[in-house]
Formats: sequence, C-alpha cells, structure tokens
Amino acid sequence: MHPLFAEFIGTTLLVLLGNGVVANVILQKTKGHNSGLVVIAIGWAMAVFVAVLCTATASGGHLNPVVTVALAVVGKFPWANVPAYVAMQMLGGMMGAFLVWVIYYKHFEATPDGDTKLAVFCTGPAIRGTFGSLASEMIATFVLVFAVLNMAAPSFGLGAMSALPVALLVLGIGVSLGGTTGYAMSPARDFGPRIMHAILPIPGKRDSDWRYAWVPVVGPLLGAVLAALLYNYKI
Amino acid sequence: MHPLFAEFIGTTLLVLLGNGVVANVILQKTKGHNSGLVVIAIGWAMAVFVAVLCTATASGGHLNPVVTVALAVVGKFPWANVPAYVAMQMLGGMMGAFLVWVIYYKHFEATPDGDTKLAVFCTGPAIRGTFGSLASEMIATFVLVFAVLNMAAPSFGLGAMSALPVALLVLGIGVSLGGTTGYAMSPARDFGPRIMHAILPIPGKRDSDWRYAWVPVVGPLLGAVLAALLYNYKI
Amino acid sequence: MHPLFAEFIGTTLLVLLGNGVVANVILQKTKGHNSGLVVIAIGWAMAVFVAVLCTATASGGHLNPVVTVALAVVGKFPWANVPAYVAMQMLGGMMGAFLVWVIYYKHFEATPDGDTKLAVFCTGPAIRGTFGSLASEMIATFVLVFAVLNMAAPSFGLGAMSALPVALLVLGIGVSLGGTTGYAMSPARDFGPRIMHAILPIPGKRDSDWRYAWVPVVGPLLGAVLAALLYNYKI
Amino acid sequence: MHPLFAEFIGTTLLVLLGNGVVANVILQKTKGHNSGLVVIAIGWAMAVFVAVLCTATASGGHLNPVVTVALAVVGKFPWANVPAYVAMQMLGGMMGAFLVWVIYYKHFEATPDGDTKLAVFCTGPAIRGTFGSLASEMIATFVLVFAVLNMAAPSFGLGAMSALPVALLVLGIGVSLGGTTGYAMSPARDFGPRIMHAILPIPGKRDSDWRYAWVPVVGPLLGAVLAALLYNYKI
Repeated sequence: MHPLFAEFIGTTLLVLLGNGVVANVILQKTKGHNSGLVVIAIGWAMAVFVAVLCTATASGGHLNPVVTVALAVVGKFPWANVPAYVAMQMLGGMMGAFLVWVIYYKHFEATPDGDTKLAVFCTGPAIRGTFGSLASEMIATFVLVFAVLNMAAPSFGLGAMSALPVALLVLGIGVSLGGTTGYAMSPARDFGPRIMHAILPIPGKRDSDWRYAWVPVVGPLLGAVLAALLYNYKI
Repeated sequence: MHPLFAEFIGTTLLVLLGNGVVANVILQKTKGHNSGLVVIAIGWAMAVFVAVLCTATASGGHLNPVVTVALAVVGKFPWANVPAYVAMQMLGGMMGAFLVWVIYYKHFEATPDGDTKLAVFCTGPAIRGTFGSLASEMIATFVLVFAVLNMAAPSFGLGAMSALPVALLVLGIGVSLGGTTGYAMSPARDFGPRIMHAILPIPGKRDSDWRYAWVPVVGPLLGAVLAALLYNYKI
Repeated sequence: MHPLFAEFIGTTLLVLLGNGVVANVILQKTKGHNSGLVVIAIGWAMAVFVAVLCTATASGGHLNPVVTVALAVVGKFPWANVPAYVAMQMLGGMMGAFLVWVIYYKHFEATPDGDTKLAVFCTGPAIRGTFGSLASEMIATFVLVFAVLNMAAPSFGLGAMSALPVALLVLGIGVSLGGTTGYAMSPARDFGPRIMHAILPIPGKRDSDWRYAWVPVVGPLLGAVLAALLYNYKI
Repeated sequence: MHPLFAEFIGTTLLVLLGNGVVANVILQKTKGHNSGLVVIAIGWAMAVFVAVLCTATASGGHLNPVVTVALAVVGKFPWANVPAYVAMQMLGGMMGAFLVWVIYYKHFEATPDGDTKLAVFCTGPAIRGTFGSLASEMIATFVLVFAVLNMAAPSFGLGAMSALPVALLVLGIGVSLGGTTGYAMSPARDFGPRIMHAILPIPGKRDSDWRYAWVPVVGPLLGAVLAALLYNYKI
C-alpha cells in the first residue's frame, strides 16, 4: 500500500470502528444500546488495533496528526511529509464518520436527542471548563505519545500482534483519563468528524459545538509535543 | 487433521461457542442471562480464537465461505477447493447450532419468546430496512476481510497466539459495527444455523425469518469480494 | 519447582483466584458485588493464566485431573504419574478454597443465603436435569481438551505469554458454555472445594449438594477422554 | 532513561491511570460514572501495562516498593539501591495522584460524598476488620510477587508485549482478591496518594483514614517477603 493511502484507509477504519462503537452504545434501538463505557473503551482500542495492523508496514500507522508531529519533533519522521500525512488523516476521519452515518442512519432517525447524535461524531466535556478540558486532553495525549515513543521493539517481527500494545495503551487511557472530555487525543478523530456532522443531513441534529472544537486540537498537540520534548531530553 | 475435517470441526467450534454465548446471554434462567453485549462480543471473539487455533495449521482456518472466496479471488486459495471448503463450513455451522440446542435445551423451554429463540440461531436487523442491513453486513465484512488480507505474518511461528489478531478483529467489528444487524459476516454462521432452527424441535419457536435470510449471505459476499479486489489493486 | 509442588501450588492459585472472583461477585458487601458474569469469566481466565504461567515449566501446568488423564491417553504423560498429579491437584483445589474462605470470611458472614455461599465453592445447574448438565460439562470439557491438544507450539519460547492461549480458551468456554452448569470442567475445581464447604465452619451454610457432585466429575472425564480419542484417531 | 527517573515517571503513570480509572468510575458526572468493577480492573491492569512498558528497559519497571524489596531478598536487585528506588516510587505515586486531582477537579467538586473522594486516592476495607484486611493484602501481594518471580522469560525480546503478563496478573488479582480491601498491594499506590489527599485542597474532603493506612503497607510487605522466601527455598 502507498503510505498516503494507508494513512487514509487506516484513519477511515479507526474512526469507522471508533465512532461506530459510540453509535452502537448511545443511539436508540441498536443491539448495543446502553452497554456502557467498557464497550466503548474496548471498541476504540480494537479500532486502533485494526487500523494499525492494516497500515503499520505501509505507513508506520500514525493515523493521528499529533503523533505525526511528535515523530517529526523527535526526528523519526521527515517534516516535509507531515502535511500530506495530516491531510490524509483528516480525510480518513471524515470518511470513517461518513460510513458510521451510513450504517447507523436508521438509528440516528430513531434517536430524538441532538446532543447524543453529536456525541457519535465528536467529543465534548462532561463538565464545561476550558482549563480542565485542555488539561485532560493534554495529559491523555502526553501519556499516549510518551508511551508510543518509549515502546521497545521486539527482537523479531511479531506480525499483526505488534499492533496490540498501542491498542491496549488506548484502552487504558480511555477508561482512566477519558472520564472528563472523552479522550479525543487527535484532530483526525474529532475535528474531521465534526465537519461531517455539520455537512451531513442528520435528522434533528443540533449545532456542531464549534466553540469547543479547538480544545481537542490544541490540547492533544501540546501534550504530544511535550512528550516528544521530554523524550528528546533523554533524562 | 485433514483440511476438510478441520474446516468442519472449526466451524462447529465457532458456532458452538458463538451461538452459545448468545444463548447464555438472552435465554431465560441461564447463569449469564442479561449479561450484555460485552459478553456476547467477547464470546464471539474467543469463539474465533479457539476455532482458528485448532485449525490454522491444518486448513488455514477459513471457517467462513466468504473468507474462502476472498482468498480465492486474491489467488491465495485454489478455486477448485472452494466448494468442498464451503460445504464443510455450512455443515460445521449446522453442527455447532445443534450442539447449542442440546446444551441449552432446558433454557429454550424456559424462554417463552420466539424471537429470542430465533436470535440464538441467526441474526436479524435491529430496525428493518434492506439498504441499511445490506450496507452494515457489507461494510463489516469488508473490514474483516481487508484486515485479514493485510495482516503481516510474524517472522517466527507464534503458535496458538497467532489466532489472536483475527479474534480481536472480530471483537472490534462486533462492538462497533454489530449494532444494526448483529454482524453475521458469514453464511456458515447465519444460514446454516437458520436451517437448524427450521429443522429442530424447539418448543414454541417462531418461523425462521426466511425473507431476511439472503441479506447475511449477499452482504458478506459483496463486502469480501470488494475487499479482495481493493487488495488486488495494490493501490 | 518440583512438579508435584507445582501442581499443588498451581491448583491452589487457580482455585484461589477462580473461586475468589465468584466470592467477589456474589457475596454481600464486596467491592465487586453484582459486577456480573463478565467479571467472573475474566477472573477464571486470569486464574488459569496466573496458575499456568507459574507452573508450565515445572510440571506442564495440568492443574486439572481430566487434563492429566487426557494427556496420558494420548501418550504425552506417563500413566504411572497420574495418581500423584491428581492427588496434588485435589489438595491444591482444597487449599485454594480454604484461602478464599479466609479472605472473604466477613463477607460469608454478611451473606444470609446458603445457596450463594455454596456457589462460591462449587458449581450447580441453573436448571436441574441430569442429561443436560452432563452434556454441558462433557461438551465444555471436550472443547477445552481438544483445543489444548491441538494448540500449535511457538517456534521460540514466548515465556509467560505462552500461558495466554489456554486462559483465553477458558474465557471463551466460560461465557459460551458456562450458562447451564457453570463450567466446572475439573474435579479439582469442583469436588475439592465442595469437600472444603462441608468441612469449614461457614456461618449459616446449607448442605454441600452431594447428589450433584458426581456430574462435574464424570462429565469432564467423559469429555476429556472423548477429545483425547478423537485426537488420537488423527482423522 | 535514568533508572531513578524511570521509577518516578513509571509510578506516576501507574497511579495516574490507576487512580484515574477509579475517579472516572466513582466520581459524579464523569463519562464512566458507575461503569463498574470491570472498568476499574481493566484500568488498573492497563495502568500496569503502560507503566511497565515505558520503564522495563530502563529500570526493570518495579514501580512498587515491595516488589523492589522482594527482588532484593531473592538477590536479583542490590539492597543498596532499594532506598532510592522506593523514594522515587513514593514520589511517583504522589505525582500521579496530583495529576488525577488536576484532571478530575471539577468532578471532585461535583461529588458531595467525602468517602468517595478519599477512595479515588487510596484503598479502604469493604468491611472493617484488621485480620481480614491484612490477610487480603498479604495474600494478594503474595500472588503478585510469587508470579512475577516465576515468570519465564521469552527466548527473544517481545518488546512492549513483555509488559502484558504482569498486567494480566494484576487484572486477575484485582477481580478475584480485590473484593475486600481494593488490592492496594503497594505503599506507592496507597500511602503516597493518601498523603496527597491530606495535602491537596479538595472541596468537602473527609480525613485521610490514617488508622487504616498501615495495613496496605505492612500487608503487602509481608506477602512480598513471604513469596520471595518461598521462591528462594526452591521447593
């Protein structure tokens, strides 16, 4: 696979499965309705697993703009390739959100509440408060990127199994640090789908909460860069 | 093990454990009654794990007609062997459904609702609608087959552990894309057990919902072939 | 570790963690009270994982009389060593049940219902019926032993990770086939703790349900031998 | 990474994610409110996974004073280095608890009950009783350390995956033996955060339950030393 196509299809799979599990848990009349945070956390972790295993060989499986930036900061990825990777990730996130809308269309129809419909696409704070939300996204993404940078490579190729550690990492961050803002940790997972929420014809939708939209972009970026700098410092 | 016997016993194990967990969760008076989607999703994932680890060496562990077809499309499996594999898979699915009926017989008796009893055997849509159901099954199976085809092999044999990635893949698809139609993704898992539902003496059963029966055959087939074609295209 | 000590301490750990999770979920006032089947199934799976990883090198980690018998049937374990292994496993099961009683003593006191207290120690059918119970235990143990015998070994030692496949196998059997009788699958896990239930001073306990006690001995033995014979036949 | 920095940052990550999941599950208005023991157990297991994978190469990833002592007892770690390791672990535990307070501040505000707020920081018994609590902590830590000491190493480096067995071990201990006292098993996880509870300005907090504070120090120490001695005896 071409690296850019890999980043596109990988982020598509990530958001298809990740937003898909949210749709399954919170929309009305689904088979997973109300099945709880454990299902959402497992769903996002497996979304990462599937997306990374399909793309790790082809593109490195970044699938997240702030991961790409962090890898550039530590010198493991050329800055020149950052814009194209990020563009593909954003498009992939939008494509994934589109497919979730296709699959769960009848359940969007069956769900009256506009907040719920928005939550399938993008994150929002459990309690409003800029400092707390920004701190949550920053610390969660710091943990994500710091751990990714410090993962020891196996002596021999483990094949698809090498996608598991990052998936379990996201599982842990989700259940532990996702309680406040819903652990966006990536503009491709939050901003891209938010655009789709604004564009797509969703029956009875609310506005796309643009005033919050910068938090899951800036917070993750700060956390990722901080992790990269700490890693570079080689304390 | 002979490959054909492996496909038969593997699909038997798959449906025994997969339909078994559904029986445990939805039939009355079981120890797992009402234990939720997370248990069903884990159960199906482990069903795949057990079935694949028992058969991967002997037959490749396809255990699903549309996987066999997809492997033939990409040239990794001879077309001539497809019919025998598919036949064994269908028989295995029927055998697995039969064993679930044996084990849970008293709980079928204790469950008055005919819809619930049918749901132990085969899938059905949460909300009726041909396009949505077909799209769900197609996209879910696309993800399954695309990921299977792109799984990197480990440098050295991981033994039974190499059955884990496909099991986690099914876990992820289940929680994320199973909310609409119940992620059949395989005629052996859906059509075979549906025939058993029609044949077996189940107290107070309803009809076998034949008008829906083509969806979890055609949707998965389309999704699998699409994934195989995209893989072949080597974009 | 001496193999016999390994079988003793391993089965102690198995039943300590396995019966421990049941105590946590069903006794009153525990932190895990009423946390559901998913916790019990995860707990038993991790009990297997911990017990096997501690003992695999020293004794092979059988930890179950019917596994020892099955390995003897297929010629992978000398018949002469079977009695000592089984004796250690039975003692380990009793020791594990004793430790659960020590840890959860105040919660046994806080739980009025005698059936619940018995269920911490040993299994019982959800619906009485000898044929169904025997079939359940037989088929569940068949799956366990058939999969254990067919597990491919990794090319290189995976260390503690090699205990994971059998743990996931037990997770799958538990959620799928445990709905009727509670998947004893082993006299060391059922008969040994049942003896402890009879012996130990448990406030307000009921009788130890001896009329059912033979089922989780005979069913697992039949299932294990059947799996071993099928494996031997090399179909 | 310098080993002492690794122990500090590792224990920070451990308690950040570990106490974080408790905050998510028990504080008011979080996205994981009331999502149950399964989420807490998964969260602590993944906390161990992340913390160990980040630090295993640099410091051995002890992250727990009683593990460090046990490794010294069996001769796998120099006694001279124990004080510095323990100091870093205690500081890390305090730092992790501080970060949880930062992230979940608004949810501490939203939670009226002082017992709940204390429980985010440190453990307490479900039913008071020194003997039972001490026995629980001792046996749980015995299992932890005995299994860690008996874990076989893989023939080749598994990279980040080698952090998985100890994480699953903690998952198993948590669901099975955590029902009485909440499986502290470490002064860095209990005493350090308890100090932070006393120091930090938490709206409407209760006292820090100092009369119980010695139990999750002494119990784990006894259990760890006992496991080390049994391991040394090479029975």
